[in-house]
Amino acid sequence: MRQERIAAARKLMQANGIDALLVLTHDDYIYFFDEDRFQPRAIIPRKGPPIVICSRGEEREIRESLGAQNVRVFATVGQQIHEVVGTMRGLQSNLGRPPKIGVQFWFETPAVLVQLFQQANPEAEVVDSSPVMDTLRMVKSPEELALMREAARIAERGMEAALQAIRPGASENEVAAEAIYAMRKAGASGTAVPIFVNSGIRSLWLHGTATAKVIDPGDLVLIGLVPVFNGYCVDLTRVAIVGQPTDDQRRLFDTYVAAQQAAIEAVRPGVPASELDKAAEAVVKDAGFGEHYVKGMGHGIGLRFEETPAPTIHPKHASVELQEGMTIAVGHPTLAVPGIGGVRLEDTGLVAASGWQSITQYPKELFVRS
Amino acid sequence: MRQERIAAARKLMQANGIDALLVLTHDDYIYFFDEDRFQPRAIIPRKGPPIVICSRGEEREIRESLGAQNVRVFATVGQQIHEVVGTMRGLQSNLGRPPKIGVQFWFETPAVLVQLFQQANPEAEVVDSSPVMDTLRMVKSPEELALMREAARIAERGMEAALQAIRPGASENEVAAEAIYAMRKAGASGTAVPIFVNSGIRSLWLHGTATAKVIDPGDLVLIGLVPVFNGYCVDLTRVAIVGQPTDDQRRLFDTYVAAQQAAIEAVRPGVPASELDKAAEAVVKDAGFGEHYVKGMGHGIGLRFEETPAPTIHPKHASVELQEGMTIAVGHPTLAVPGIGGVRLEDTGLVAASGWQSITQYPKELFVRS
Repeated sequence: MRQERIAAARKLMQANGIDALLVLTHDDYIYFFDEDRFQPRAIIPRKGPPIVICSRGEEREIRESLGAQNVRVFATVGQQIHEVVGTMRGLQSNLGRPPKIGVQFWFETPAVLVQLFQQANPEAEVVDSSPVMDTLRMVKSPEELALMREAARIAERGMEAALQAIRPGASENEVAAEAIYAMRKAGASGTAVPIFVNSGIRSLWLHGTATAKVIDPGDLVLIGLVPVFNGYCVDLTRVAIVGQPTDDQRRLFDTYVAAQQAAIEAVRPGVPASELDKAAEAVVKDAGFGEHYVKGMGHGIGLRFEETPAPTIHPKHASVELQEGMTIAVGHPTLAVPGIGGVRLEDTGLVAASGWQSITQYPKELFVRS
Repeated sequence: MRQERIAAARKLMQANGIDALLVLTHDDYIYFFDEDRFQPRAIIPRKGPPIVICSRGEEREIRESLGAQNVRVFATVGQQIHEVVGTMRGLQSNLGRPPKIGVQFWFETPAVLVQLFQQANPEAEVVDSSPVMDTLRMVKSPEELALMREAARIAERGMEAALQAIRPGASENEVAAEAIYAMRKAGASGTAVPIFVNSGIRSLWLHGTATAKVIDPGDLVLIGLVPVFNGYCVDLTRVAIVGQPTDDQRRLFDTYVAAQQAAIEAVRPGVPASELDKAAEAVVKDAGFGEHYVKGMGHGIGLRFEETPAPTIHPKHASVELQEGMTIAVGHPTLAVPGIGGVRLEDTGLVAASGWQSITQYPKELFVRS
């Protein structure tokens, strides 16, 4: 359990008028408790011990690992509902007003849990926890960076395995199988999002999956890997082609490499996230592919596959300024040109005082397989 | 695109006063459109063509695969927001009242999307879509059953690979790596939930994950596999032990086998889901482990890992009656006894007129590895 992180969160809760955090996602749970559960559920009140909700069989283990004196454990369903509601009522009567409860509003927070919480605690006001959590999590500690570097080594092994598996007649699923296998053998606990092996017409997708589609000669193949190591992930995306690229495919690929490089060169503390898009978009426009550019060249990454700033999800994040110590992925949106194909490279790096320091290391070639 | 399913949904929308379905999850999207996207987003109004929201690069492919005449495609972010809001306003002015929009309230629906939808469409009333979707999806067609049988063959291969990988000194992650690899090679597109390899003290968990924990002599090891084939999944869980079981471990395992069998024998059309628990709990009580029994012995399964009826999630579902043609998983909660360990078997089967017909086929032994 990370007492210092909980203490820092409490200061920010105070500053933002948030009375308790309701933790419902793996990323925030790992951040505070340094362990993970299938269903991560906890409450961190501004005052008093954190509350962890688990199943009965897990109670002893969780008490031992977190320290019984520091945490209250609710281990049966009846107890959970009763005690959570009771805790909220207690908060309210201490405060003399309805409590403000911070919840993460991102893709992993289930709507059904927020709904159930509101039904059980109709007085509580549910607010976005990002003023607390983004402030805490955007800048990474050396310990966090070390975990991301390990995730990068794993991603590189996965990329090697994926490239070796690509050949005409292989399915996207087969390529994904080899990449996942290599990454798990190298220590990944899984991937933050499903592996992305998109070939041929499917290379035009903005986001990826791997399907039973067979890779045909002439197909561009996008390989996107987001392995997780001790909760932390990196994003590494590269492109292969089966057979020789056409001139247009080569030009499209070279454009993306140059656009990603322009964004990388724009990275430095104090620069808003939108500058990365400006730099990349200028390159893409010059190459004549401007109408196909999709904004969102850089986004935060760490305990979540996309963290603040994430301008593709929240347009307002375009104005968030990069800070020294942030980790970002650069090269996010696919450049998809119907009739030619889609390309995308993505790397994860640190915003250092001097600018970008890449965490992922992999050659930026159009890998030709036959 | 499944026109007949959309037509059936519309009749149920009419009957339930729902003006449109907002589809935000893979299961409902696959059910209606017979394909999948990384971010499945669609609107099915009670009248007029369905609306699919995708990225620009995907537009041509999606139009070809779904048929341009049957569907409206919103392919840019500006267009999406503008047109979705416009569609809702159109609905409202046609109806002369705020529209009722059905949304799936389960674990996969992101709270952030429901929140954004409500902010953009403050007049719309968001309601639970389950009266429509459960009615459509609970009973499976022969085509759906064939996909689940294929998923079961995949799960069996994964179990074989996992059991072969279990030995003292192997980590849970290594075992999971072999199981996932075998299942993807056999055609799985992934797993509906992360693979579950829980050993030793971690066998007491109600739900699973696989970690870097090394499997020690004497550890019970729960292996839970939920492979996905063409969107459909099955659940298959078995238990292994490294070294010889103690008498208590053997007795606990035998109790679970008998409890699962009692629940299986209770399966027939017309029986409420709670009868499965009653049958299983009686066996567990007789064996002296009653205080450790957790309710939820059976739950629906298909396009989602847990479908209605799912009494562990919604206690009211305990009264849902089984119907001929439903697919259910029997053996869900871990029987966790501190000091002995946790055990759990789970199989997926069809509710036939004559009772349970197992879809997963795997011996119900305590697999001894050394």
